[in-house]
Amino acid sequence: MLNEILSNIKPTSKEILLKAKERTDNLLMPHKAMGRLHDFSEQLCSIYGTLTPKIERAAVFVMAGDHGVVEEGVSSFPQEVTGLMFNCFLNDMATVSVLAKQENVLIVLADIGSKFDSSQIKDYKNEFVIKKIVNGTKNFTKEPAMTRDEAIKCIEAGFEITDRYIKEKKLDAVITGEMGIGNTTPSAAIGAVITGNSVETMTGKGAGLTSEGVLKKIEVIKKGISLHNPDPNDPIDTLAKVGGAEIGAIAGTILAAAYNRVPLILDGFISTAGALIAYKLNPTVKEYIFAGHCSEEPGHIKMLEYLGLQPILNLKMRLGEGTGAVLALPLLKQAANMFVNVSTFEEAGIPK
Amino acid sequence: MLNEILSNIKPTSKEILLKAKERTDNLLMPHKAMGRLHDFSEQLCSIYGTLTPKIERAAVFVMAGDHGVVEEGVSSFPQEVTGLMFNCFLNDMATVSVLAKQENVLIVLADIGSKFDSSQIKDYKNEFVIKKIVNGTKNFTKEPAMTRDEAIKCIEAGFEITDRYIKEKKLDAVITGEMGIGNTTPSAAIGAVITGNSVETMTGKGAGLTSEGVLKKIEVIKKGISLHNPDPNDPIDTLAKVGGAEIGAIAGTILAAAYNRVPLILDGFISTAGALIAYKLNPTVKEYIFAGHCSEEPGHIKMLEYLGLQPILNLKMRLGEGTGAVLALPLLKQAANMFVNVSTFEEAGIPK
Repeated sequence: MLNEILSNIKPTSKEILLKAKERTDNLLMPHKAMGRLHDFSEQLCSIYGTLTPKIERAAVFVMAGDHGVVEEGVSSFPQEVTGLMFNCFLNDMATVSVLAKQENVLIVLADIGSKFDSSQIKDYKNEFVIKKIVNGTKNFTKEPAMTRDEAIKCIEAGFEITDRYIKEKKLDAVITGEMGIGNTTPSAAIGAVITGNSVETMTGKGAGLTSEGVLKKIEVIKKGISLHNPDPNDPIDTLAKVGGAEIGAIAGTILAAAYNRVPLILDGFISTAGALIAYKLNPTVKEYIFAGHCSEEPGHIKMLEYLGLQPILNLKMRLGEGTGAVLALPLLKQAANMFVNVSTFEEAGIPK
Repeated sequence: MLNEILSNIKPTSKEILLKAKERTDNLLMPHKAMGRLHDFSEQLCSIYGTLTPKIERAAVFVMAGDHGVVEEGVSSFPQEVTGLMFNCFLNDMATVSVLAKQENVLIVLADIGSKFDSSQIKDYKNEFVIKKIVNGTKNFTKEPAMTRDEAIKCIEAGFEITDRYIKEKKLDAVITGEMGIGNTTPSAAIGAVITGNSVETMTGKGAGLTSEGVLKKIEVIKKGISLHNPDPNDPIDTLAKVGGAEIGAIAGTILAAAYNRVPLILDGFISTAGALIAYKLNPTVKEYIFAGHCSEEPGHIKMLEYLGLQPILNLKMRLGEGTGAVLALPLLKQAANMFVNVSTFEEAGIPK
């Protein structure tokens, strides 16, 4: 299935892109005076294949998973919090839910690999999908986080869920999000392996480690990488050995957006680890991606540089969940709105 | 009248600010994980004097004026464009109108000092106020742009218009905007005089000058400053000698927001020249200001640094009109929403 998905991801329309740039040049303002907003609107045109882009129905996919490596003491929160947060996402108590509600974004929580018995959750307001590939990953300092087969299944699960919602809800924008205590650790590991930056460069305090904690986390990641020696050019190998279930599912979400020709707004550090996996599977996905924001986690900007993506927002955030990407959505909506609805000089009858 | 306004601008509530910081500390996320969004929500609490801030009714005030100094060749557009754009602002063809409409922001265009006969405009959709203090300013390389009395009247006009709309429409946020061919020239002059930075540092290409044009613009500004020697500690003297009508009105808008305890979102270079005037009249206004974005005009960041303000967005824009500030509005709405609606750890029953 994964191979079929990958071979059906096509580039965005370069023909429409050229036509879009022409309209930009004629908009009623000094040349390209709206700066990066023009880049956004032109990319949206090229993704949708139209000169009248509009974003109306977005969803944030919050992929959840637990991490065996947490037993090495790499997180400042106990592992149970992953599952406890499910109720908060589903009942609009968590940050991403609160932001998404205000922006009219559909919230989809998917349990891909938590250790929590999520089938016990009964009453909830938002979309909830249980598609558990693992019951938490293994501790990668001792054994691979997942098997290769499990890694592929996580990506496919993320794809299937996202693809289904895109089609059922006629989504015209997809936003990545996640929950998983300890998940900056596998993200930093993936980042170091794929971008080639040092583990020290890619590792930060996550949800709130002390500087001593960060040093320990660096050692843990180094141990995992040297034990398994993941292949940087084999993203599934990397995901299996030092990754996480929700990171695989995020890669699947990104593939689904590109497959369906829908723009994808990337959240922070963990989401971008998922983007590294998706990009290594098929570099064309990059044409569909907007980097919602730059996280305070120091490795994030290194990942974005590797992908050649410039973040839209930079507000010193480090929460994840999808929050930074949801905050960036109105700017993309406005980019589309500006492109379509601002007059040209000619339409306004004003000499250029 | 101006003195009465200035003496009735009071600081924001420091008591509420402390209570707001306490709630921030307990929100269901790693400590302050939403970065600058917490600063925004706490400032909103402190401005409104409440722990349940909400932004629902915003307006952008587009202050318009013409500039005698344009005859020195400091702009790449002819002066007539100021007036021609009125129709575009009033009928949703201009960028700020298109963005404001989508964000449900009221558009108020006010002619404070254009050379255009704006009374001839008959059919329009948005709010339009004619309160003309001058028919364009004088060429400040030859004589002062305005008299001291006219400068005061421009500020008062901006105050009156904004104050009236705040009260009539129960506005809970005010956004600055402007239109005026050539108005980066008086803005750079005000910036150089008040911040003490060199004219070279404060001057950029505006709507699209060549580098030769920028050099000429620098000479023009230097000539005006050395001819009139405006007093940096007398903002009315500075505004009168090298400023502009719409810049004075923007200062009035800012005073009106602070006077009515309503947050003010500042747009770009010209708006911030207005903020320098307002700040020098009463530094307390700063507590009410959010810097919407950082413009590509190089002097803008210098003005913001002088005011101690950090821009929210940085998207390489240089249009003005109020566009950058309107784009920043959803982030402030979300900051308020997050503060009020995200659960605390205690409310969610999750150990901190």
